[in-house]
Amino acid sequence: MSGVREGRVEVVGLGPGPERWLTPEASEALAQATDVIGYRTYTARIERRAGQVVHDSDNGDELMRARHALELASLGQRVAVVSGGDPGVFAMASAVFEAIERGPEAWRALDVRVLPGVTAMLAAAARLGAPLGNDFCTINLSDNLKPWRVIEARLSLAAQADFVLALYNPASNARPRQVHEAFAIVRALRAPSTVVVFAKAVGRPDEQVIITTLGEADPVLADMRTLLLIGAQSTRLIERGQGTPWVYTPRYVEGAP
Amino acid sequence: MSGVREGRVEVVGLGPGPERWLTPEASEALAQATDVIGYRTYTARIERRAGQVVHDSDNGDELMRARHALELASLGQRVAVVSGGDPGVFAMASAVFEAIERGPEAWRALDVRVLPGVTAMLAAAARLGAPLGNDFCTINLSDNLKPWRVIEARLSLAAQADFVLALYNPASNARPRQVHEAFAIVRALRAPSTVVVFAKAVGRPDEQVIITTLGEADPVLADMRTLLLIGAQSTRLIERGQGTPWVYTPRYVEGAP
Repeated sequence: MSGVREGRVEVVGLGPGPERWLTPEASEALAQATDVIGYRTYTARIERRAGQVVHDSDNGDELMRARHALELASLGQRVAVVSGGDPGVFAMASAVFEAIERGPEAWRALDVRVLPGVTAMLAAAARLGAPLGNDFCTINLSDNLKPWRVIEARLSLAAQADFVLALYNPASNARPRQVHEAFAIVRALRAPSTVVVFAKAVGRPDEQVIITTLGEADPVLADMRTLLLIGAQSTRLIERGQGTPWVYTPRYVEGAP
Repeated sequence: MSGVREGRVEVVGLGPGPERWLTPEASEALAQATDVIGYRTYTARIERRAGQVVHDSDNGDELMRARHALELASLGQRVAVVSGGDPGVFAMASAVFEAIERGPEAWRALDVRVLPGVTAMLAAAARLGAPLGNDFCTINLSDNLKPWRVIEARLSLAAQADFVLALYNPASNARPRQVHEAFAIVRALRAPSTVVVFAKAVGRPDEQVIITTLGEADPVLADMRTLLLIGAQSTRLIERGQGTPWVYTPRYVEGAP
């Protein structure tokens, strides 16, 4: 390669899956990248381009992927770090900044950009109606990087505050237990009639949406690809003659002026 | 017009502003619509198209706009209801379902779709680094439709839970007071060194980002177009030689396994 190129890292969210939710900015970054780095579930979604190198890897080594991206950018490469949804919500952006914070001083001078995207809870909400129409909390149920007691406290306080809860990574093969405990915490604080939705792989061919109640929900339905929504007190269904009912949370809260 | 058309309502989020954040699905819906309905700040952003009728209105009458859209769809029109950001987060989606719930039975049979988009907090977070890298709460500070005591309780519980707080609609000409009270509540519960960001009009030509601390923040800086972020205990800055420091919240929480 001749001349000096300006390296760059772009942290790109692919959205929940379909091309129709990928922003033009993200598409452009993918088209321009010399190198694409990501967990292979995500790199597999990207169109192959001549001259572009795809570095795929297993899940779980986010910090290694982030360092790899920063090293390549230091050498003048234009790197796209890809993950699902929005990169800033339980995806790669935080890992990239952690790598910069711990890494060589020179990495702070690199051109690093995060490109916003459609995160899973927004896609699930749109599919259902408007369940996030009032105040909500977004919690990653994985305790790989935070103590379970912190998650417990957050669930309990959020349930008391009558937030709608959007729970990411509710369960995996390695963590089947947490989602049961999460349900136990919320069941102690919210009515059994509270709306619960398991929104699985929204926007993808195997999409599955299960609408139930806190009293009747079976936590076993949650897996790695599920966005779990637990409604506020006011979250409710609008029944339709045919098709799934809509789920929405009114803007109005009892007692408003 | 000859023949019977199938009416439709598409609730479209325009994202925080620039075209580069508008999903292909949303662009397509805008291109296909026979009618566009929205607050004129948003309809003004849309390319004018021959034969397409734009119904713009003042802010504040969301339910009227929603009813208008449903009536037009009942007559066979293909209607795009537009607002900023993502339609499901403190925008038009909830108003549309409220109108359906209260409206004639026939509206339940209409083809109503919500199209997800990039909401302001995701754009602000991407611009800053990764401040939403850990659990967070999203609260609409407007008490037009909910009692202020509910907002107070939510702020207090969220601050206790060490969530990152993303506060929408922190202040307006008609509501200058609330943001001061919100700061007072959080200041009683979080350290003065907590990172605070006023992210104004992110992605637009007059974008302005002010990074400060809970102890030093001047609530007066917040207005209608500000997304106010209050960090968790672990949210921090990465200083750079030149340019704004990055803001990020690590995935790791003290005490993790």
